[in-house]
Formats: sequence, C-alpha cells, structure tokens
Amino acid sequence: MSKNRMEAFSDCVHSIIITIMVLGLSVPSEAHFDSLQRLLPAFMSYLLSFTFLGIYWSNHHHLLQAIQNVDGRVLWANLHLLFWLSFIPFVTAWVGASRFAPLPVALYGLVLLLAAVAYFILAHSLISLHGRQSVLATALGRDFKGKISIVLCAVAIPIAFFGPLYACCI
Amino acid sequence: MSKNRMEAFSDCVHSIIITIMVLGLSVPSEAHFDSLQRLLPAFMSYLLSFTFLGIYWSNHHHLLQAIQNVDGRVLWANLHLLFWLSFIPFVTAWVGASRFAPLPVALYGLVLLLAAVAYFILAHSLISLHGRQSVLATALGRDFKGKISIVLCAVAIPIAFFGPLYACCI
Amino acid sequence: MSKNRMEAFSDCVHSIIITIMVLGLSVPSEAHFDSLQRLLPAFMSYLLSFTFLGIYWSNHHHLLQAIQNVDGRVLWANLHLLFWLSFIPFVTAWVGASRFAPLPVALYGLVLLLAAVAYFILAHSLISLHGRQSVLATALGRDFKGKISIVLCAVAIPIAFFGPLYACCI
Amino acid sequence: MSKNRMEAFSDCVHSIIITIMVLGLSVPSEAHFDSLQRLLPAFMSYLLSFTFLGIYWSNHHHLLQAIQNVDGRVLWANLHLLFWLSFIPFVTAWVGASRFAPLPVALYGLVLLLAAVAYFILAHSLISLHGRQSVLATALGRDFKGKISIVLCAVAIPIAFFGPLYACCI
Repeated sequence: MSKNRMEAFSDCVHSIIITIMVLGLSVPSEAHFDSLQRLLPAFMSYLLSFTFLGIYWSNHHHLLQAIQNVDGRVLWANLHLLFWLSFIPFVTAWVGASRFAPLPVALYGLVLLLAAVAYFILAHSLISLHGRQSVLATALGRDFKGKISIVLCAVAIPIAFFGPLYACCI
Repeated sequence: MSKNRMEAFSDCVHSIIITIMVLGLSVPSEAHFDSLQRLLPAFMSYLLSFTFLGIYWSNHHHLLQAIQNVDGRVLWANLHLLFWLSFIPFVTAWVGASRFAPLPVALYGLVLLLAAVAYFILAHSLISLHGRQSVLATALGRDFKGKISIVLCAVAIPIAFFGPLYACCI
Repeated sequence: MSKNRMEAFSDCVHSIIITIMVLGLSVPSEAHFDSLQRLLPAFMSYLLSFTFLGIYWSNHHHLLQAIQNVDGRVLWANLHLLFWLSFIPFVTAWVGASRFAPLPVALYGLVLLLAAVAYFILAHSLISLHGRQSVLATALGRDFKGKISIVLCAVAIPIAFFGPLYACCI
Repeated sequence: MSKNRMEAFSDCVHSIIITIMVLGLSVPSEAHFDSLQRLLPAFMSYLLSFTFLGIYWSNHHHLLQAIQNVDGRVLWANLHLLFWLSFIPFVTAWVGASRFAPLPVALYGLVLLLAAVAYFILAHSLISLHGRQSVLATALGRDFKGKISIVLCAVAIPIAFFGPLYACCI
C-alpha cells in the first residue's frame, strides 16, 4: 500500500484544523480598540495552537519521508493522531473564550498529551512495519525528545489548575 | 481517465467532513466540569462518526488501490457516496444535541444505510468497469461483510425508536 | 507550468464548497418529525447545489484531462470560475431559508449563469493556449451544450420572479 | 526533502481560506433587495480578499515552480506566510460588518503587510537554500515589485484612519 493517499489525507486534515481555528475568533460588533483588546486571549491561544499544529505537521512530514509503504495498522494509528489533533480548534476556542481559565487549559494540555502519545504510537507502528534496522528506526534513535515532551505535558496538566500561565510556558 | 483526481477529491471531502464535525461541539460559556459533562453526548456521537468515517476512508483507500482507471459512471457513484457521507456532520450534531433521542438516531442509521448502499454501488460499478476476472472482483469476493452491514443498518433503524442505545451498538 | 497544482487547488475548493454547504442545514432544537419537515426546503436546495457542483467538478476533470500545461491566464480564468462557485453555499442557504422565494432563486440562477460564463472563458483560454488543432478543441467541438446551458440560465432568472419552481426545473 | 507535501499543504490552506470567507456572508432572514444591499460592503471586502488570495496563491505557484527541494527553514517560512494569510477571513468579515470603518481597514492593511513581509522571507530562504546563481534568484531579480508592495501597504495603514477608501485603492 503506497503512502501517497495517507499523506494527502493528513495534509488536508492538518490544513483544515489550522484554518477553521480562525473561525473561533468571533468578529467584534464594534470597531474600537477595546474590541481588539478583548480578542487578545483568543488570539494568543490561536497563535499557540498554530505553532503546535505546525510542529506536528512538520514532524509528520519528516516521519513519512523515510518510509515508502503503509499498512492498515499505520492508517489507523494515523487516524488516531488526527482524532486528537481535531480537538485542538475546540480547546483553543474554549481557552480563548474563558481567558485561560484553569479547566480549559488543563483540557488543552490533555489533548496535547494524547496527541503526543498517538504520535508515539504512529512512529512505533511505522518502525515495526519497516524493521529495527531501517533508516527510520535509526533516525528516531531513542526518540528522547518525544518521550520528554509526553512527560512534560503530563506534568503540566495538574499545574494548570493552579497557574495556567506556567502550564502554557511548559 | 486516471483515478488520481477522484482520489484527491475524495480525500479532501473525507477530511473536511471529519474536521468540520468538531464545529458541532459548541464552546461552553463557562469553565466548569458541568459544562464538560453536558458535552458528553456530543462527544460520544463525534467519536462514533469519526470511527465510521475512518472506516469508509480506509475502505475507499483499499477499493481504489486495486484499480487504475475510472469512467464517468464511477465518478458519479463516488459523488453519490460522498453525498450521503456529507450528511454525517448534520446527523452527528443532531444526535449529540438531542442526547441520543430516537428520531435523530434513526436518521443517523438511515444516513449510514444509504452510505453503505452507495459504497456497494461504487464497488459494483468498479467491478463492471474492470471485469469479473479482475483483481478487484476477486478481492471483494462475495462482499459478505458489506451485505451484512447493510442488513444490520436496516434492522437498526426501527429499533432506534424503542431503544436508541441498542441501535448504536448494532 | 504544469497543471498539477491547479488541479489540486480546484479539487480542494470544489470539495470544501460541497462540504460546507451542509453547515447551512441548522440543527433543529427538537427531535420531532416537524423539525425535519421544516428542513425540507433547505435539503432540496442542498441536493440541487450538490448536483450542480458535481457536474462542474466532473466537467472540470474532463476539461483538464486533455491538456498538459497551463499559463497565468488559465490560472486566473480558473480562479474566476471558483469565485462564482464559492457563492453557491451562500445562495443555497438563502434559497433554503426563504423556502424558494423569488429573489434568492433569481440570485441562485445569476450565480449559476456567471459560473457557466466563467467555465466558458476557462475552456476558451485553454483552447487559445493549446491551439485550434489540439485534442481539446476537437473534443469541445462547438460546445453546444455549454452555450445552451448559459442561455437557459439567462432565461430562468426573470422567470424566477414569477414561478421559482419552474425556474428550478430549467 | 521534496516540495510535494509543502505544495499540497499550501494549496489546501489557500483553498480553505478562500472558501470559508464566504461563511462571513450571513444569510439574510428576509428575501428583499434591501437585505442584498446591506450585504454590499461584505461582498466588496470578500471580492478584495479573494483577489489578494488569488495573487498570493498564483505567486506561490510561480515561486515553488523554479525549485525542487525544501528544508526545515523553508517549511517554517511557509507556515509563517500561511499564518498571516489565515487572518484574512477574520479581517474581511470585520471590514464587511463594520462597513469599511477605519480600524478594521487598518488591521486589514496590517495583515496584508505582514503577509507581504512573510512572502519576502520565504522567497529569501528559498534563494539562500538554492544559491544566488540559481534560476530562482535570477527570476526574482531585485524583486522590485515585492518591495514596492510592502512599502505601499505600510503607507496605506495610517491613511486608513482618515480615508478608508483611499487605503483600499492603494
């Protein structure tokens, strides 16, 4: 099974997620600077999510570059990743609307954590398909950065209830 | 006629359907656990629809892999399938908003039934184009799984009026 | 200049237009048959627009199949076509919401007319790029069907003010 | 790293931005000519944005045609461009809703300015990847047009506060 359609499908989903997030910025009814200021938290959460999605898309790009074939398990591992990423517009809008309240920020962190786990699963299903000696397995190495980011996300969620801004920095 | 553009078009439509469904999750105005709980039915119906669309996309992927060419009839059989799939965001949102009320669940089943029938027609128009001896025809075999799922959907619709949850399990 | 990206861009725009139209079907607040019945005009206009967009996409597919290269003029003729097609979700929603009132139906016809004209311009800019002796020019022949549909649309618009349903049939 | 996925991703994002803008045209509740007239400013800003996005997509198409490979820096320069373009539906809707009030028009100009700067950065990261002697560097020449449009945008923003329509013309 060739990887082309999985790439095309993933590109489409990433680009739609990144673009419909902007629909969460509700158009102000007035044309004052105040209304812009009130949009600031929504803008900040949009910027954050855009960056995360950019990182995921760029990593996805690198991950699939090293391989040629996919199987059913990889397709579903990929859909699993896209499932969690598809929640980003929802949590972004909530974080923005609630001005970085603890619960939405914690939920945001949870979605990122589950997306990181899903990315981990996808990478490992690709390695198990192509073998431990493949280019991909060597390139990923011990995937230290991946594991560290999962731990960081898991740590950030409880912190979110006390200091949402610290959690965001993490 | 090459199959590339039909694949690209179908990938795009599948990915848009899967992503705009999340717009059906309305952002709560408050940041309590209660508002999350109230979103639970919408989340469940989203999860269900995401899975169905994942199955359709994955099947579509397998179906088109075996073939090289398409004709006008196949294009329209494909559009017919996408037409019914495009209703999934609507019925998902209704099922979620009405907390799995009988009528929306029955309608959801009807949409799935019609999509299954459309998939069946697409598969058969591909077989009639490539001949009974083709790889595709052999691969689909008697398509037992396809027929059974159509029957199951047809059975589930009347049940939905009495016990929506049973119908969902089917 | 190769035609690949223009095809990919057009496929994406067609598939987004076809899919976001379904967002025009507002989710009923109740779960009765009445609320379904009230959605009937919106459903009918959706069905009509889906068919038109399917026809345009399928024609676009056939048109670009015969050619290999595009230039800047073709890119803009294509964008011009997509511009008018992008209004279809808007007029579809209005026709549905107003239950086929004269003005929205006339506007719907106007959008279709301008899209047909834009398609005509696109076809002719492709012919002028590839020459009168090309496969494309022969295939399009005198493009009788294209011209007739422009005339029909132009006739349907004034009729819409008296009998919207007759206009739809045309 | 091949440029294919970056092209596909950019095509998707451009086409989604161009299409969801039309969701900013709210469907009138009545079917009078008055309601159409009230939509005129929204329609004008939509037309303007469609043209700008068409120009960006067409330039993007030309820019990537001359090259074969991309690296991580180019991916991010491209995402940076798409980030600013993704604000166009928001500022378009605001300009339309406020009937070309000074602040939204100035913000619109600011978004265009930042997109022009991002395009400039993308072009230069491509040149630095492919070398000063490459086809691309020669083709872009001194990129007089690009620099002039950045200056014009920068000039247009303060003007917007006094005469929004003059700013639009620029």
